[in-house]
Amino acid sequence: MPDILGNMRRTHHLGALSSSDAGTVVTLMGWVQRRRDHGGVIFVDLRDREGITQVVFNPERSPEVHAKAHGIRSEYVLAIRGLVVERPEGMANPDLKTGSIEVMADELRILNTAATPPFLIEEDADVSETIRLQNRHLDLRRPNLQKNIILRHKTGQAIRNFLNNQGFLDIETPFLTRSTPEGARDYLVPSRVNTGHFYALPQSPQLFKQLLMISGFDRYYQIVKCFRDEDLRADRQPEFTQIDLEMSFVGEEDVMAVGEGLVSAVFKEVLGMEIQTPFERMDYDTAVGRYGLDKPDLRFGLELVDLTEMMKTVGFKVFADVASKGGMIKAINAKGCADFSRKEIDDFTRFVGIYRAKGLAWIKVKEDGEWQSPIAKFFSDDEKAEMVRILNMEKDDILFFVADTPSVVNEALGNLRNHLAEKLGLVDKGSFRFVWVTRFPMFEYDETEKRLVALHHPFTAPEEEDFAKLDTEPLATKSRAYDLVLNGNEIGGGSIRIHQPEMQQKIFDVLGLSREDYEDKFGFLVDALNSGAPPHGGMAFGFDRLIMLLTGQTSIRDVIAFPKTQKAACLLTGAPSTAAPAQLQELGVRVETEPLG
Amino acid sequence: MPDILGNMRRTHHLGALSSSDAGTVVTLMGWVQRRRDHGGVIFVDLRDREGITQVVFNPERSPEVHAKAHGIRSEYVLAIRGLVVERPEGMANPDLKTGSIEVMADELRILNTAATPPFLIEEDADVSETIRLQNRHLDLRRPNLQKNIILRHKTGQAIRNFLNNQGFLDIETPFLTRSTPEGARDYLVPSRVNTGHFYALPQSPQLFKQLLMISGFDRYYQIVKCFRDEDLRADRQPEFTQIDLEMSFVGEEDVMAVGEGLVSAVFKEVLGMEIQTPFERMDYDTAVGRYGLDKPDLRFGLELVDLTEMMKTVGFKVFADVASKGGMIKAINAKGCADFSRKEIDDFTRFVGIYRAKGLAWIKVKEDGEWQSPIAKFFSDDEKAEMVRILNMEKDDILFFVADTPSVVNEALGNLRNHLAEKLGLVDKGSFRFVWVTRFPMFEYDETEKRLVALHHPFTAPEEEDFAKLDTEPLATKSRAYDLVLNGNEIGGGSIRIHQPEMQQKIFDVLGLSREDYEDKFGFLVDALNSGAPPHGGMAFGFDRLIMLLTGQTSIRDVIAFPKTQKAACLLTGAPSTAAPAQLQELGVRVETEPLG
Repeated sequence: MPDILGNMRRTHHLGALSSSDAGTVVTLMGWVQRRRDHGGVIFVDLRDREGITQVVFNPERSPEVHAKAHGIRSEYVLAIRGLVVERPEGMANPDLKTGSIEVMADELRILNTAATPPFLIEEDADVSETIRLQNRHLDLRRPNLQKNIILRHKTGQAIRNFLNNQGFLDIETPFLTRSTPEGARDYLVPSRVNTGHFYALPQSPQLFKQLLMISGFDRYYQIVKCFRDEDLRADRQPEFTQIDLEMSFVGEEDVMAVGEGLVSAVFKEVLGMEIQTPFERMDYDTAVGRYGLDKPDLRFGLELVDLTEMMKTVGFKVFADVASKGGMIKAINAKGCADFSRKEIDDFTRFVGIYRAKGLAWIKVKEDGEWQSPIAKFFSDDEKAEMVRILNMEKDDILFFVADTPSVVNEALGNLRNHLAEKLGLVDKGSFRFVWVTRFPMFEYDETEKRLVALHHPFTAPEEEDFAKLDTEPLATKSRAYDLVLNGNEIGGGSIRIHQPEMQQKIFDVLGLSREDYEDKFGFLVDALNSGAPPHGGMAFGFDRLIMLLTGQTSIRDVIAFPKTQKAACLLTGAPSTAAPAQLQELGVRVETEPLG
Repeated sequence: MPDILGNMRRTHHLGALSSSDAGTVVTLMGWVQRRRDHGGVIFVDLRDREGITQVVFNPERSPEVHAKAHGIRSEYVLAIRGLVVERPEGMANPDLKTGSIEVMADELRILNTAATPPFLIEEDADVSETIRLQNRHLDLRRPNLQKNIILRHKTGQAIRNFLNNQGFLDIETPFLTRSTPEGARDYLVPSRVNTGHFYALPQSPQLFKQLLMISGFDRYYQIVKCFRDEDLRADRQPEFTQIDLEMSFVGEEDVMAVGEGLVSAVFKEVLGMEIQTPFERMDYDTAVGRYGLDKPDLRFGLELVDLTEMMKTVGFKVFADVASKGGMIKAINAKGCADFSRKEIDDFTRFVGIYRAKGLAWIKVKEDGEWQSPIAKFFSDDEKAEMVRILNMEKDDILFFVADTPSVVNEALGNLRNHLAEKLGLVDKGSFRFVWVTRFPMFEYDETEKRLVALHHPFTAPEEEDFAKLDTEPLATKSRAYDLVLNGNEIGGGSIRIHQPEMQQKIFDVLGLSREDYEDKFGFLVDALNSGAPPHGGMAFGFDRLIMLLTGQTSIRDVIAFPKTQKAACLLTGAPSTAAPAQLQELGVRVETEPLG
């Protein structure tokens, strides 16, 4: 069957050839990165996934081929056959794997032409992301995106090899599943066969992997797409990929050990980097207490200091009131930063405002030890001395205070801490600091729903010593959940699950789910727990974010082949789009509002 | 953090222990398969994924543990610590990997109780599939389903290892994508952000993998879920798994070679079986001509014989009319089967009726060479002689004839051929016969839509020597598509794709898509083809069906962990279900018809 390739077949990738191949005849195929004429000779940089090789069209060697080569333009697709030769003295290009050789072309086929691309195919194309996403097929030709996608592939393999060797089974769970409450917003899929009924796309395989443990598969994993119909932040996608695993007959430490093994395997195989295990453990209260956040970045200090106790009695009424009325006062000492300008301080004040802090008090310690501060005058000398002691205040320090509810104080100062560290260059970009955050609260109070909700999910087991508290003070109950934090990013998390039906029902009760509600929604889980469920637990890693950290990218869209915008649209294919009336009629659904067009 | 496991951790799986472990103290965990009392001693068969180990509770060894063991019931989850001992003389169980030993229990923890299961957890539970699917978490405990799911895992790994070594990159493509015409029915997902717009779940990553080739990734693969909202047959699921791959700078033979390598790797690593490659090739016309179907089962003969030419002139008007009016007459000679009863022949007639054949003529050749047949009398002696020659009719043969349109004749006799082979025991169940079917027609005429449709899909390249026919006789145009057939099952298929925009537009024209239509739906593909697309092609395997054939199962539901019924429902979780009005309101869709409840 003759075709455009005829009998030509590629013999080498474009990163393969070196001096040792000089003298051999090769067939190469790829894209024209660059074409230049020099003294009547045409030089073409031919590009593929593996690299670039210089091809030479010399009129003296082959007039016809040289003539044909005149038609070549950027991004044309070529097949050439030619002779590998050492480059002339002094013409070698050390920046190129193949820089010591070039290929003298004896045969040329133009496999395809190409329209002039809207942007240059190179490392840093200076072009808007919109144009990049509209032309993703070209954007993906850029070397850094190729690198990211290939590293993503390698990472997936490293993870699979590790888990396969640990006896985990890759088992597929359904995508057309049942909508469950107690989570983010589901994507719904109308059913045609059961008109008026809907599937939900999974937010995670949580219930199915627990069922697999109950079925006795012992160790499960999956690298799997999950879906959340949330309003997107910069690092969120409506569909995202999760490394999902579950184990039977284990406690926290067993799962964390597997998580550590997985991460070290990835760093070793993908980055060639040895990382220390076991990772540091820190319980939730300590993390929030010292860093304000449950995903502390341990690459720098700037810890939060709690002043609530001492402020109860101070003369400064604003602080005293907050402290004595169940509020909290915390401070950060930015050592040696007393030279922050008024404007910078205003910026910090605006910054903490994002986290609902009504204000940001500050104190500068001057050369002479005197305080420069709007609030200095409200404190007695004794109170000042006490603050100096607790906060280790020295000359040239600047102190930032937030007084508010605990959640506002911690979120505001915790984020200010990261912000300051960036600004002050305290962050060692080269280092990877891992920490397991453990013993999360089981529940938090949801102000909008006016009820308790699960901090993790309602299948997370409580600490056994806290069983009693479930009735008396549920908010004080600790869970057996754990998050893995890397440089201030949550890269994974999980928990030991409830394996006894009574406990599961108990948790549903605490969450205020009516019996009917959970019989209907979770009855099958309670039944399953009642059929011989082993103690089990697991975790999930955010694959996209892990790749983002491994590649040092700042946008998750740069590690996903075909990402969506923050409006959840694919600019390349134009999804989502309107549906044909006939399609909707078959599904028995009607669009209420007019399409946005 | 104390929990139900305390300090107990499993030391061995339940398939691991043998005589060489005698004398060691082990900790085992698993499910109670069977518990029996014998002379005051309690014997428990403890089960996990890896096997079964016999645990002995002896009152003389430990009265407390023995007493506690009295509470044990089937499917309870236990943790035991004990001593491995050789079984007493003559008590060994050769059917069990661990049959030479037993474990004398010194410690017992009942990790969980279990309600009495609705069916026994054993190889062939005699129970309806409905009850099995409602209790899938128990059904999956059955050894054959465990075996299937584990083999599925192993097969996936074998495939990944093979493709990774061949330089393929595992690249994820989107699930929330754009609805495209020219295919099966899409599952739609309403968009909340773009109200009135819909995503479609992918029927295959076809366009995305072509875009990846255009981006220069060179070799792509994915083991990925695909979705088709079709009315389900026994071997169909609304969501199914595809081994999807694509390659650049290749022709048919290159892709088929990879397909053969993949299949042999799987058979070797999973079944330990060496299979011969390359596989036989057969073009579409030959397959349909000799076997009636484009997925011929080559494990037996019974080939179809075409009598159309000779029948044009016979006296038997029924056949003569069909033959001379563009119809077809074919026959199968079932050698030595003249003893088929009247009833059996009636069954065959009903059987071909399924395939729209209006009748099944037959001739028996008796001892004396005489014909016994309702139609014998219509043929002259010369015509009979001619038929004897063409059909190699001998005594005790029975001949079956269908006269109708070619498609009816081929489909009816092709399926009758398989049916007869099964009935006559001509099928060698042990053997695996592979064949590539090639050179499919580009188009077929769709009676309902009254227009040409693509037999494969509209991105399949035509044979170059047929380019001219696209205008003159499109139905005679052959494509560069190929299917891989195993024992009469299509297990994979693919094609060389169109890589030139003009050809792609040409095909859309032939298919009668208006410019507007394909600008809107496929404009991005044509643009991409116009930006430097390499020659490329690929294929996809049906993963579920491949596993079904490897495990020798007859239902695809037995190789999927959580399958759906033919009504596309999950009997375990109750998906699909009704949606909360608030959910639908957010999506801006309304249910037209009442839910079926």
